[in-house]
Amino acid sequence: MSYTAPLKDMLFNIEHIARIDQVAALPGFEDAGLETAQAVLEECAKLNEGVVAPLNWEGDKNPSSFKEGKVTTTPGFKDAYKQFAEGGWQGLQHPASFGGQGLPKTIGAACIEMLNSANMSFALCPLLTDGAIEALLTAGSDDLKSIYLEKLVSGEWTGTMNLTEPQAGSDLAAVRSRAEPQPDGTYKVFGTKIFITYGEHDMAENIVHLVLARVTGAPEGVKGISLFVVPKFMVTADGSLGDRNDVHCVSIEHKMGIKASPTAVLQYGDNGGAVGYIVGEENRGLEYMFIMMNAARYAVGVQGIAVAERAYQKAVGYAKDRVQSRPVDGSMSAAAPIIHHPDVKRMLMTMRASVEGCRAMASVAAAAYDAAHHHTDADVRKQNAAFYEFLVPLVKGYSTEMSLEMTSLGVQVHGGMGFIEETGAAQHYRDAKILTIYEGTTAIQANDLVGRKTARDGGAGAKAIAAQIEKTEAELTKRGSAQSLAVAKRLTAARLAFVDVVEFIAANTRSNPNAAFAGSVPYLLLAGNLMAGWQLARSLLVAEDQLAAGVDAAFMQSKITTARFYADHILSRAPGVRDAIVEGAESVTALAAEAF
Amino acid sequence: MSYTAPLKDMLFNIEHIARIDQVAALPGFEDAGLETAQAVLEECAKLNEGVVAPLNWEGDKNPSSFKEGKVTTTPGFKDAYKQFAEGGWQGLQHPASFGGQGLPKTIGAACIEMLNSANMSFALCPLLTDGAIEALLTAGSDDLKSIYLEKLVSGEWTGTMNLTEPQAGSDLAAVRSRAEPQPDGTYKVFGTKIFITYGEHDMAENIVHLVLARVTGAPEGVKGISLFVVPKFMVTADGSLGDRNDVHCVSIEHKMGIKASPTAVLQYGDNGGAVGYIVGEENRGLEYMFIMMNAARYAVGVQGIAVAERAYQKAVGYAKDRVQSRPVDGSMSAAAPIIHHPDVKRMLMTMRASVEGCRAMASVAAAAYDAAHHHTDADVRKQNAAFYEFLVPLVKGYSTEMSLEMTSLGVQVHGGMGFIEETGAAQHYRDAKILTIYEGTTAIQANDLVGRKTARDGGAGAKAIAAQIEKTEAELTKRGSAQSLAVAKRLTAARLAFVDVVEFIAANTRSNPNAAFAGSVPYLLLAGNLMAGWQLARSLLVAEDQLAAGVDAAFMQSKITTARFYADHILSRAPGVRDAIVEGAESVTALAAEAF
Repeated sequence: MSYTAPLKDMLFNIEHIARIDQVAALPGFEDAGLETAQAVLEECAKLNEGVVAPLNWEGDKNPSSFKEGKVTTTPGFKDAYKQFAEGGWQGLQHPASFGGQGLPKTIGAACIEMLNSANMSFALCPLLTDGAIEALLTAGSDDLKSIYLEKLVSGEWTGTMNLTEPQAGSDLAAVRSRAEPQPDGTYKVFGTKIFITYGEHDMAENIVHLVLARVTGAPEGVKGISLFVVPKFMVTADGSLGDRNDVHCVSIEHKMGIKASPTAVLQYGDNGGAVGYIVGEENRGLEYMFIMMNAARYAVGVQGIAVAERAYQKAVGYAKDRVQSRPVDGSMSAAAPIIHHPDVKRMLMTMRASVEGCRAMASVAAAAYDAAHHHTDADVRKQNAAFYEFLVPLVKGYSTEMSLEMTSLGVQVHGGMGFIEETGAAQHYRDAKILTIYEGTTAIQANDLVGRKTARDGGAGAKAIAAQIEKTEAELTKRGSAQSLAVAKRLTAARLAFVDVVEFIAANTRSNPNAAFAGSVPYLLLAGNLMAGWQLARSLLVAEDQLAAGVDAAFMQSKITTARFYADHILSRAPGVRDAIVEGAESVTALAAEAF
Repeated sequence: MSYTAPLKDMLFNIEHIARIDQVAALPGFEDAGLETAQAVLEECAKLNEGVVAPLNWEGDKNPSSFKEGKVTTTPGFKDAYKQFAEGGWQGLQHPASFGGQGLPKTIGAACIEMLNSANMSFALCPLLTDGAIEALLTAGSDDLKSIYLEKLVSGEWTGTMNLTEPQAGSDLAAVRSRAEPQPDGTYKVFGTKIFITYGEHDMAENIVHLVLARVTGAPEGVKGISLFVVPKFMVTADGSLGDRNDVHCVSIEHKMGIKASPTAVLQYGDNGGAVGYIVGEENRGLEYMFIMMNAARYAVGVQGIAVAERAYQKAVGYAKDRVQSRPVDGSMSAAAPIIHHPDVKRMLMTMRASVEGCRAMASVAAAAYDAAHHHTDADVRKQNAAFYEFLVPLVKGYSTEMSLEMTSLGVQVHGGMGFIEETGAAQHYRDAKILTIYEGTTAIQANDLVGRKTARDGGAGAKAIAAQIEKTEAELTKRGSAQSLAVAKRLTAARLAFVDVVEFIAANTRSNPNAAFAGSVPYLLLAGNLMAGWQLARSLLVAEDQLAAGVDAAFMQSKITTARFYADHILSRAPGVRDAIVEGAESVTALAAEAF
């Protein structure tokens, strides 16, 4: 059940794929070079391998429980959270002015992956706190910032995001929670929120809820939604905790996975109204919430990578240990560890290549985020922001859909033992399924990709990325090695498929929206596949250079083989997906609802 | 949580795809025409919809439990089993001479699907009994037949298959259980068997274990394994139950799914030896076991179809009910049931098309089985046997792998509610994962497909099937409708991909086994996809004819659209899989075990 952080691969990405040297050249990140990255990652690995990872299975066996309004987390969680907070990990990427360490996302993303590989249920608490910090940094008044940010950044308090209501899942226009303005400038908040991750727990002394609600008299639909801070305990003038606010947990859900993470139903205002403080301006809540959600969506994508990595490590361990049957190639005269069977290797390589591809994609996205926020040149910031924005639905959608297949393979490698809960492989399979749902389902990510990220500029941004990929293809061809040529072939085919689809989407989103959106999720999967495959193709070029330079031959050889595997076995899916989207839209929506 | 048997689609297959008229022309099946099929299916639907299906969720909440050697099944199971047995359902396909109804598999397969859609955990008990009956029919002595068969066929007693031991999972050569011959012709059996489905339970008064073990002094490996009947209770001369035999359940597993089905660890011979009766000849146990396993593998494939169907029905129900957001095409001015969103339709169509494709494939396989066993012409029997044998690993492997994707989509359609256990969608996702593992993992099925079914005859049998598919392509082209031409295009591409792969497999299995087996599972998935797509292409031709004849227009239109959807969205995956197999073998096994 153990976990070892994949530091080599993470640092390979940080150094060569995300180019930490360029990140460290940005103002404010002068100290965030490769050495810092290495030191931070090693320290992070210690905490996660030693403290957080061992609690993962315990959380599944002994989930958070609810009794009389209180949630008790899994034994060990409270102490592990204390160590996490005291180590300064909550503040890793947050501003030094509020007690954070101000490190770039390029480094932070690797730490988030480790925490989630170690324990996805545990990691959700800091993930949501990050979102709350982000929202307050963006739109909070100076008062709100001074009262809440330090406590959140230090991890003393935790944060939540309150969007969903029973009748309003993906459709936030349907939010009904309401906020009545009070003479003192505060609001009284009323309503029911569901699916609130860590909405109630015992790991921190206060919980800062960020809540979507409608101010009395606000317009209908998404333009009448405001964002509020509603603390569990009121904060007094001196910063200490005061009265209990009128927000209460009435139950937690019985879920298929991430059982240690309490998913709360929260009731606001049953006793006169919960005191809320507006974040930014009235009726602009959705805008602020999207900032939190974009950060959270990226992080959920990393969760997909993380859980697939953990499942991979577990499968590798079993495959090396379990002895069964002789290898088909006659290389051994007796039964051998199953890793020597080709199909077991195929499964392990599929997991490895998918994880490495998605990790490289996420790493590049993180570097783009850093440049988008810190570069001195406005044009460069804009370009990087556009690239990052394009990648967010792919990191979220593709990495998490990938994690379903990978955690399934993780069970499969274990054979019958994989189906027995005590083995632990099944937990990852159950845990992963939430990832394609929360923070916006894959379809919601795909809507974002189709609408805002592709159709809005007529596909220009997407095609600009395709042009970058073409340059990598040219480099691969110029390199001329057997592996680089093979990868170039698949990359070209996938890129051409992508461009076809981009043109189809751009042409149809307005004129024939059913056709465009019939292909939205397949388009997302194709695009994510291409981005991951592209980054592995870049990895291959780097690894061949490093190999030639005599650096870490075994590791570089593995990177090359993994890139080749990805190209032939995963990237090769792309042209078929193109056909389904471009030539197959009609049959998706042809049947009327009554025909089902 | 309800289930409605898809009688129309089942009868469409039985009538037009499996051609029940041809089955009814076989000796012994004179009364098994379409009318009989319809009557049997309708009766079967009543039992499963009304009695068995409502217990499915109950079994998940309240699984089989173990205490002091005894297993107590989920409340309601015992009574439902009684109704199942009294209705004569266990004997549906078994010979009238032992009390069965002697119906063809073409009809029986649909009944098995219903039972498994209704309740997979429940259905496992009859499934294993079928295997025991099959083994006794094939190789049992007259004595064994007369003592055991009627009771098994009537469902009064149930059967089990005891293969797996802790050190012997897929590799039966490693079986260590032993049997000591006794002067009276019986044996004393000793050993530990694991993963024994319904190895102990309270639904029937006796359990007939079929057990693999080595007779003292037998050769090592697979050639020294014999098959024994070991009853839980001894049977006295008058057929009544006597002493408890020395086989005992020591525990049951804590599993991710099919929780109501007790998975037992059985201990044989702790008190002097369990009395066993040899089935057939010594050292031919594996051969007989393969007969049981072939029947069981087909049935497990049907389980995949069944659980995907149930997940589909549940998803459709939710999608019609859940109101969220306006449709993108502007067709409605307010929030609508989510079935009106293109991506929800895409998910539902993917489930529907996969289920219908696999169901049609299984139906055709069943008809081939019937002809292989009942046709008067030896050549026709042989051809049908070869076709059936080729299809078994595809029905098992493809339908079950498909069920993983479909039950995942079933959860996805439900959004956040899908992850909440009480919704019921998650159960199907958890239940399905065993299907790609038991009765031989997908890799084991693929080994069978590569070795015995493809390489052995140099790919001739596989290519003969491809030639049949080409005929269907010609018919589609000749038909010349927009839909038939579109489907023909995909079918041709997939068939050509298949033939390429068959040639690759045939060329490499001996000379470069790592390369051939690196592609074994992808080959299975490609072949299964092609067979299912082929049957749906045939369905399209039939449906267009029926539509022209004015028969059930709505249903026939749905069949046509579904066939088109399958071709564009699922069959279109085939060429990419070909590339992975034929051009991507090297990277699968390139890394040494130490590199993982």
